Amino acid sequence: MGSLEAERTTTGWAASDSSGVLSPHTYTLRNTGPEDVFIKVIYCGICHTDIHQIKNDLGMSKYPMVPGHEVVGEVVEVGSGVTKFTAGEYVGVGAIVGCCKDCRPCKADVEQYCNKKIWSYNDVYTDGKPTQGGFAGSMVVDQKFVVKIPEGMAAEQVAPLLCAGVTVYSPLNHFGLKQSGLRGGILGLGGVGHMGVKIAKAMGHHVTVISSSDKKKEEALEHIGADEYLVSSDATQMQEAADSLDYIIDTVPVFHPLEPYLSLLKLDGKLILLGVINTPMQFITPMVMLGRKTITGSFIGSIKETEEMLEFCKEKGLTSMIEVVKMDYINTAFERLEKNDVRYRFVVDVAGSKLDQ
Amino acid sequence: MGSLEAERTTTGWAASDSSGVLSPHTYTLRNTGPEDVFIKVIYCGICHTDIHQIKNDLGMSKYPMVPGHEVVGEVVEVGSGVTKFTAGEYVGVGAIVGCCKDCRPCKADVEQYCNKKIWSYNDVYTDGKPTQGGFAGSMVVDQKFVVKIPEGMAAEQVAPLLCAGVTVYSPLNHFGLKQSGLRGGILGLGGVGHMGVKIAKAMGHHVTVISSSDKKKEEALEHIGADEYLVSSDATQMQEAADSLDYIIDTVPVFHPLEPYLSLLKLDGKLILLGVINTPMQFITPMVMLGRKTITGSFIGSIKETEEMLEFCKEKGLTSMIEVVKMDYINTAFERLEKNDVRYRFVVDVAGSKLDQ
Repeated sequence: MGSLEAERTTTGWAASDSSGVLSPHTYTLRNTGPEDVFIKVIYCGICHTDIHQIKNDLGMSKYPMVPGHEVVGEVVEVGSGVTKFTAGEYVGVGAIVGCCKDCRPCKADVEQYCNKKIWSYNDVYTDGKPTQGGFAGSMVVDQKFVVKIPEGMAAEQVAPLLCAGVTVYSPLNHFGLKQSGLRGGILGLGGVGHMGVKIAKAMGHHVTVISSSDKKKEEALEHIGADEYLVSSDATQMQEAADSLDYIIDTVPVFHPLEPYLSLLKLDGKLILLGVINTPMQFITPMVMLGRKTITGSFIGSIKETEEMLEFCKEKGLTSMIEVVKMDYINTAFERLEKNDVRYRFVVDVAGSKLDQ
Repeated sequence: MGSLEAERTTTGWAASDSSGVLSPHTYTLRNTGPEDVFIKVIYCGICHTDIHQIKNDLGMSKYPMVPGHEVVGEVVEVGSGVTKFTAGEYVGVGAIVGCCKDCRPCKADVEQYCNKKIWSYNDVYTDGKPTQGGFAGSMVVDQKFVVKIPEGMAAEQVAPLLCAGVTVYSPLNHFGLKQSGLRGGILGLGGVGHMGVKIAKAMGHHVTVISSSDKKKEEALEHIGADEYLVSSDATQMQEAADSLDYIIDTVPVFHPLEPYLSLLKLDGKLILLGVINTPMQFITPMVMLGRKTITGSFIGSIKETEEMLEFCKEKGLTSMIEVVKMDYINTAFERLEKNDVRYRFVVDVAGSKLDQ
């Protein structure tokens, strides 16, 4: 494997400034080290976080930046210490490609909470080079952060599971909310929300979609499979639904009042926040004390949970709802995603866009 | 038991308006029904909530009002259906004397979360009469809401356990925080906080008292037995203590920022709010998401937990720190409590004040 010694290049689509417009960019990849997997990217999903990153909304963006952290690819080559993967296999990579491997979260197999985690892109790897994401011909990733795609799953279907899917699976798993018969609420019906409905339904839950208007009612009930639809601005409906839910997965990424949703929870119910919101959220203490309710949050999921989630989705025949586009459509896709104009996730056909040719 | 047929009177100390000044007041008690226990009050603790009630701070006070919900007394007479108690036994009564016995919380033995619970005072009983509390010669209470005082426990010591004690015991019990070796924080060192330190220490925890100044440092460490003392206004101390606690019991009953305390929690740490605060509390979502931290609350505890907690305190030889006063000192005691001038709970020697003679 002489290629282990040579520095390879790949072409991705990168933002070069905070306009967030992506265009082709060629860069070098590190050699396939002993623990590394060299992956040819097949599909990569577009997550809302990508927009924040390319537009420098968090003030921490470095350019050129190739986004993309819902990566499905094919193993081309593995390092000498890699036993889990072989060339030709389909694998996935999510939002994280490194961690300290030594802290409490790392030792507890929840490396997503490691303070030294390395993001798939817009971060600096241990070799000092910038990390670049999945909207590119290929990636080199530490085997610890690579998951096997179970046989029989369609590659384009799997892409959104690697971030949106595990983001809802992880809290249901961690907070003891996997058993059938629970009543759950999904607040917000975007990429993460639609996977929330599907995964919760597959767990055997009674699922209510909660939305500010009735615009998505038909699709929630008819196409995604929710059991009920609750319009949060309808005081009567909200009153009738009080004290009825075991949990709410709150995917809304902008400020919103919490109290209407806390009211929907039963005794010991959990409000699980998944949206990064830097405007202070508010609640009065009796809303949590009287009913011993929990406000908590969760952040993607671990590699272990990603593997479990993929097996779960395979077993349940669970699919995401996606619109597959080519690489040269990505700027339009970002524009449409910003307007919520997608049902429910864009997935870029990276291999079909022939970037590395 | 001819007395079952006769209406008895008792004398308590009642507030007659929102000035909150208490003075003697004589009223009738219901007959001892089949499920009732007629109790001669021996001691009754003064809780901070009593101040809110007598002063109509919550806008729901009815007068005349006899406060008091940390009641230790002696059984004088029991109804025909009462098998658990006999005359002469020492018993306790807490904040609740009735519930629907039929809802989800009631059926789960957490009747403190029943929406139809009846408060020990400032409420209306099933017979239509106002409930009156423990600063009185006697009470008639449904046996379900009466707990046995384990033999060998000093009656005056037990009084604060019936509200302050179970208020901290219950969340530690419910949220899986009873095992030894945990690191806990107690925010606020009043009646509830001092019991928090003692109960958490008795569970084998490493306990840090968190306070806005170092005024209570010596007493926290020397007299109550805390392991550490953290001044929340000291940025360096707070920084050093980041990511170190499994839980914080937050007893502060007025608005305060949550983020400094969320920072102190480890991965999966829990911030448990015990103070009723009607000013909105605030936090940004990354503070709970990155570390999967929980903000929750808890409200007193169940009768079952009260019984467990009393056994626990007996077994561990755990005592409260109290100042015993006579009934005619109660208005002064309330004034001093409002200024936090008590170490750490006033207990009124009701029997020694000879109200019913």
